Amino acid sequence: MTKKNAFYAQSGGVTAVINASACGVIETARKNKDKIGKVYAGRNGIIGALEEDLIDTSKETVRSIAGLRHTPSGAFGSCRYKLKSLEANKAEYERLIEIFKAHNIGYFFYNGGGDSADTCYKISQLSKKMGYPVQAIHVPKTVDNDLPITDNCPGFGSVAKYIAISTREASFDVGSMCATSTKVFVLEVMGRHAGWIAAAGALASDEKTDLPIVILFPEVVFDRKKFMAAVSAKVKKYGYCSIVVSEGVHYKDGKFLAETGLKDAFGHSQLGGAAPVVAGMIQEDLGLKYHWAVADYLQRASRHIASKSDVDQAYAMGKAAVELALKGKNSVMPTVVRKSDKPYRWTIGEAPLSKVANVEKMMPKSFISRDGFGITPKCRRYLEPLIKGEDYPPYKNGMPQYVKLKLVSVKKKLPEFKVK
Amino acid sequence: MTKKNAFYAQSGGVTAVINASACGVIETARKNKDKIGKVYAGRNGIIGALEEDLIDTSKETVRSIAGLRHTPSGAFGSCRYKLKSLEANKAEYERLIEIFKAHNIGYFFYNGGGDSADTCYKISQLSKKMGYPVQAIHVPKTVDNDLPITDNCPGFGSVAKYIAISTREASFDVGSMCATSTKVFVLEVMGRHAGWIAAAGALASDEKTDLPIVILFPEVVFDRKKFMAAVSAKVKKYGYCSIVVSEGVHYKDGKFLAETGLKDAFGHSQLGGAAPVVAGMIQEDLGLKYHWAVADYLQRASRHIASKSDVDQAYAMGKAAVELALKGKNSVMPTVVRKSDKPYRWTIGEAPLSKVANVEKMMPKSFISRDGFGITPKCRRYLEPLIKGEDYPPYKNGMPQYVKLKLVSVKKKLPEFKVK
Repeated sequence: MTKKNAFYAQSGGVTAVINASACGVIETARKNKDKIGKVYAGRNGIIGALEEDLIDTSKETVRSIAGLRHTPSGAFGSCRYKLKSLEANKAEYERLIEIFKAHNIGYFFYNGGGDSADTCYKISQLSKKMGYPVQAIHVPKTVDNDLPITDNCPGFGSVAKYIAISTREASFDVGSMCATSTKVFVLEVMGRHAGWIAAAGALASDEKTDLPIVILFPEVVFDRKKFMAAVSAKVKKYGYCSIVVSEGVHYKDGKFLAETGLKDAFGHSQLGGAAPVVAGMIQEDLGLKYHWAVADYLQRASRHIASKSDVDQAYAMGKAAVELALKGKNSVMPTVVRKSDKPYRWTIGEAPLSKVANVEKMMPKSFISRDGFGITPKCRRYLEPLIKGEDYPPYKNGMPQYVKLKLVSVKKKLPEFKVK
Repeated sequence: MTKKNAFYAQSGGVTAVINASACGVIETARKNKDKIGKVYAGRNGIIGALEEDLIDTSKETVRSIAGLRHTPSGAFGSCRYKLKSLEANKAEYERLIEIFKAHNIGYFFYNGGGDSADTCYKISQLSKKMGYPVQAIHVPKTVDNDLPITDNCPGFGSVAKYIAISTREASFDVGSMCATSTKVFVLEVMGRHAGWIAAAGALASDEKTDLPIVILFPEVVFDRKKFMAAVSAKVKKYGYCSIVVSEGVHYKDGKFLAETGLKDAFGHSQLGGAAPVVAGMIQEDLGLKYHWAVADYLQRASRHIASKSDVDQAYAMGKAAVELALKGKNSVMPTVVRKSDKPYRWTIGEAPLSKVANVEKMMPKSFISRDGFGITPKCRRYLEPLIKGEDYPPYKNGMPQYVKLKLVSVKKKLPEFKVK
């Protein structure tokens, strides 16, 4: 068997730990130089493969690759480019296989969420048909935590930890001034379809540190009256209230709260966040002084307070992907298998991509409290291990030292191809 | 000399480290039990003194008081209540003296910014006149960093560190997806009058980690055309740009960017932030995809990534305040005196309150780069030491363990008095 090269690409929204998976892939491949040649990375994700814009990771130092473990964002560049169905755009799939052939690539590691699992699956199928079989392994990643089968998705735990800590800190702040000042704090978090990230806000409060938190989930249709009653009750009891609102919160007709017809001086619709809208309603209905924050990218980039569970699992998924490839596996995704909640024990499993592609794992109903504004003990048991442990990056002069790679291009061999 | 009790109160917006100053005051007083009786804290700041709502800190355990060093917010409650001038509201000042007399309080430690320095100054003057002299010592605190004489203000360094790190992390995020997605990220930060906090965003980029950052200072009149040119140039060179905008950015006529006439569906003015306004302009003028975040309270409560310099100085200011009192000083404020930038060396000085009260330290012109969108090397030399070092709180199950005090009330001795 001739030694094949590997291809690795990052897909979709980046996270605080996707580079830890890249680190796992590259370090494990380097340890198996007798079986795997070079690891080429796609510049800006799958677009790099399509346009033959490959990065030679062998040009990066051991130290740089190790540094990926503590560097947020996508070191090789990522993109939101979704390949269409085989029927609609066979040319792109064929182009990928051509690229793989030209660069002697036998392993395809694709690091992403649901869409990329689907692409990965199709590539493994098509490559067989085209007579150039490629082992396609998907490396799970998504802050949305919506991939099936795996216990959780690398990237989620660190966002959850950031949101839980930020909500706790802001609640302490508001609580200490509520007698004469701000009584309601609203924090907007990511999660257009699923409330996993919003749910993490509830971890701010626990047995030892009791805090008034109200969650607005995208799974629960927004009911202004009920919501105001929930906030009022907290303010009455605690003197203040913190609200964690998912960007995906919507009305019965599906309209997002963030699109309530705000217009600027020129009459243009304003694409404001959900937080200012919720805050405005609170002032209108309850007359309470508020403050609001929108975490946006800060939440998914916050490597400085990443969850150790998350970093470990992100790395483990990258490592396992290479090991699965070396075992001859194809069209699979390594998964996190939970063995116990407390103490948290997990091991690595695998799932066939046919069962991962196009399946979205929503938050179970049993995870949302009956009133719709909190989480159940079952949800807490699930979430708590995912934010466990700290994994601080190295600092110099007060700043985290994140690596920037050299990103040396591989010489092109094929005619030009431009992604539309 | 009979042993006098001490009074301590937190004033104005709380910070990640104001409790470290409280810890310094209380621990140092406890070490000097032969000279200082009990430390009473005002519940919700000076209002607690006026309403005789005092907290007996001697009821708190050694462990709880030590825990204040790593707990954000104001553990005793704070307020934005400003005492009027002596002429306008002599009754309140007299009430304070009555309270001090009734509880045998001889030391007044007031932990706050410019306004509270002024109150502190007046109390020391009036108490003398009223024949019940109280030693009034101001403990500096403000994220705005605008107190004079002291090198910097406890609370600022930690906000600066949070903003510098968040800007770096978000820039890595945007940079890794800019080829096909978001090209501009806007982060709104505090600072209505002074650009100290916004300036900290520039620390995200340094010699080793070169990032495209554009700062919008409140000191620089907003010029949309020049601003767009600056952003365009960064996007052209780097592929993306991060913008740090102070909430206080305004037009020539003084109107804040955040008040550009946004109206909701009901025609109400929207009190939106500056970030969405700036983001909207960028889309309009440059047609670039953007994301925006508003850090709000998260920045001043972010004890999880507090600056060690800042924590150390906050504690040292509390400790020094008690030591100054023991030396018989009155109407003074301990200060941070910078001895050298690199390595950072500082010692403790003192300033008469007559020179602190009602003096605002603005950012020097020499700290803002000529184009108005960045900082000078001089500013960098000033800021860098303030974010130096990490001082992580203890964690349990993935969450920082912040203390909640018992806050036991002292028995009232005087007739009721309600603050209007």
